[in-house]
Amino acid sequence: MIVAHPQLENSDVQPFFREAIANFSNVTWHPITNSFDVLEEQKLLISHERIIFEFPLYWYSAPAVLKHWLDDVFTMKFTTGNRYALAGKELGIVVSTGDKERSFRAGEEEQFTISELMRPYQALAGKVRMHYLPVLAVHQFLYLTPDDQQRLMIRYQQYLTNPKFEHFSERSEWFQQQLQERIRANATMAPELEQILNVIQNNQDELDDLQWNLTELKKEEDS
Amino acid sequence: MIVAHPQLENSDVQPFFREAIANFSNVTWHPITNSFDVLEEQKLLISHERIIFEFPLYWYSAPAVLKHWLDDVFTMKFTTGNRYALAGKELGIVVSTGDKERSFRAGEEEQFTISELMRPYQALAGKVRMHYLPVLAVHQFLYLTPDDQQRLMIRYQQYLTNPKFEHFSERSEWFQQQLQERIRANATMAPELEQILNVIQNNQDELDDLQWNLTELKKEEDS
Repeated sequence: MIVAHPQLENSDVQPFFREAIANFSNVTWHPITNSFDVLEEQKLLISHERIIFEFPLYWYSAPAVLKHWLDDVFTMKFTTGNRYALAGKELGIVVSTGDKERSFRAGEEEQFTISELMRPYQALAGKVRMHYLPVLAVHQFLYLTPDDQQRLMIRYQQYLTNPKFEHFSERSEWFQQQLQERIRANATMAPELEQILNVIQNNQDELDDLQWNLTELKKEEDS
Repeated sequence: MIVAHPQLENSDVQPFFREAIANFSNVTWHPITNSFDVLEEQKLLISHERIIFEFPLYWYSAPAVLKHWLDDVFTMKFTTGNRYALAGKELGIVVSTGDKERSFRAGEEEQFTISELMRPYQALAGKVRMHYLPVLAVHQFLYLTPDDQQRLMIRYQQYLTNPKFEHFSERSEWFQQQLQERIRANATMAPELEQILNVIQNNQDELDDLQWNLTELKKEEDS
């Protein structure tokens, strides 16, 4: 997580994100400022598989602090040249905005989609041979209901840690892993969590059955 | 001209641009650094009609110094709020790249067009109610022939000073104005320049005649 926020202490969404990843030992939360050591930053990048730029949208782009970091850390020698040190890694973007989601489209207030506005990062990923992930955009965080916040937290955790966060079957598997870890870590809660885990596993078995039936039905129709 | 170049003294194209506007008293060449006075910058913007961001393309965007300036100078209160201090002005972009023009399209090296990559500035212009001008992109300046450099200089001058720089008739008028100014300023060259001015004016008259004939022919066809 390359966190680029000029007023981190005043952010509402950042403490929420930080709490969301508190239990993930394989995630590094790395807020940046205008002062950094280029070689240290490059080492940090090399030691991670999924790199995520996290920032509030300032004038349809990241705050200057991220561009400063990018201009300095993503040297040609490091990113292209004959090394391509980041090749094969993933590049994700978590962007928060104060506008409604529907404002970001032609004919509405912001005219362009978040995907269009993030083109420079998509182009960057292509150039340095990283896989560009679908952007995770958070709109009007403060207006989210507690339920929506909970859903966002899980989406966020998956965005950071789930290899294929957009696929339903992978999502279910990820949930089961998370629960198993919590069961191991928390003896008091274990019995309750085990029940939830059982429900999810049963649901997954049912879904697998349904999927199998559907496939068979299709085969019959086709023949 | 808001010039954002972290290594102005090493730039090849910047001295060329600066020379191009040396004789234009109504153009302000304003290189920016990380240190500026927000109110002074805002005053400068208000006192000009066409505002141009000029920069080399760094990771598919402007160098960080422009974003820093934008984040600080384009305050909500100044640009939107109930003031819209920049409304009705024009926003242009002069961007130089080290790549070929044809690299900037789907399927080629850079994957996206310059227009797509500049979306954040287009969105900015829309938000603060400025008119967004077509981008002037300069590709591989060092490889330009002297003739191409000359043509670029004129395109650049027109981009800065010609109200409607994309329209042929306006271009011709602009040339005539430029020549008349040079004739006034330079007595030695005046006779030669007057001859050129005559040729252009005669050409323009002939073109106007042709245009008139074409219109008449169309009328006859339509009736």
